[in-house]
Amino acid sequence: MTDAERAIRDVVETLMAATKRGDLATVLNLMTDDVVFMVPGQEPFGKEAFSALSEGMKSIEIDATSEVQELQVFGGWAYMRNHIRITATPGNGGAPVRRSGYTLSIFRKGEDGKWRLARDANLLTTET
Amino acid sequence: MTDAERAIRDVVETLMAATKRGDLATVLNLMTDDVVFMVPGQEPFGKEAFSALSEGMKSIEIDATSEVQELQVFGGWAYMRNHIRITATPGNGGAPVRRSGYTLSIFRKGEDGKWRLARDANLLTTET
Repeated sequence: MTDAERAIRDVVETLMAATKRGDLATVLNLMTDDVVFMVPGQEPFGKEAFSALSEGMKSIEIDATSEVQELQVFGGWAYMRNHIRITATPGNGGAPVRRSGYTLSIFRKGEDGKWRLARDANLLTTET
Repeated sequence: MTDAERAIRDVVETLMAATKRGDLATVLNLMTDDVVFMVPGQEPFGKEAFSALSEGMKSIEIDATSEVQELQVFGGWAYMRNHIRITATPGNGGAPVRRSGYTLSIFRKGEDGKWRLARDANLLTTET
């Protein structure tokens, strides 16, 4: 595994760990300012909307695990295919919701040498 | 627009035109052999499954239009965000089905200098 591959996998791990502990500042810092999130049936949205969504879900614990399917690095950018399982547990004692599926993501290396999530197509569906 | 950008847009246009006229050979030739298609709620699938699916939908006319949202080229690789509208009209006179939404795709330049679709995350949903 190259240094870049390791660094990008670390971004994913850190994103999930920070999401779980509700550390939004760390999560936002691991995305480019022009990040674009894509989910089915909605218009793509950016960092500000992501932040607002996350603030609104503060009471929900998000537990995610990922299994990287493919990671290709080309200089200062990379793409990753990932399989993700999420358990979202409401703080009010409600039943947890499980979602799983695949993502296709683009990562970009910043001028500070740090890799960040830049584009994310999320194909997860709710498990029934 | 650079030559690469023009070539990749041409791949998309040609893919749509060939799909419409049922020219599967041309469609398959515009994909890498290791192409991966991702749609919500299904396992990713490759060229062989795509081909079988297309054969099974021979009687359906697929009319697609696209509006490229973003195209970034890095040497021999590129990613594109696209908005696509599809009208699928069954040959038996059934009602057409309309789907629309966004895609995130990776393109790769082959050793023959030709660009091909390599990864495709398809977030289209059926219009109701």
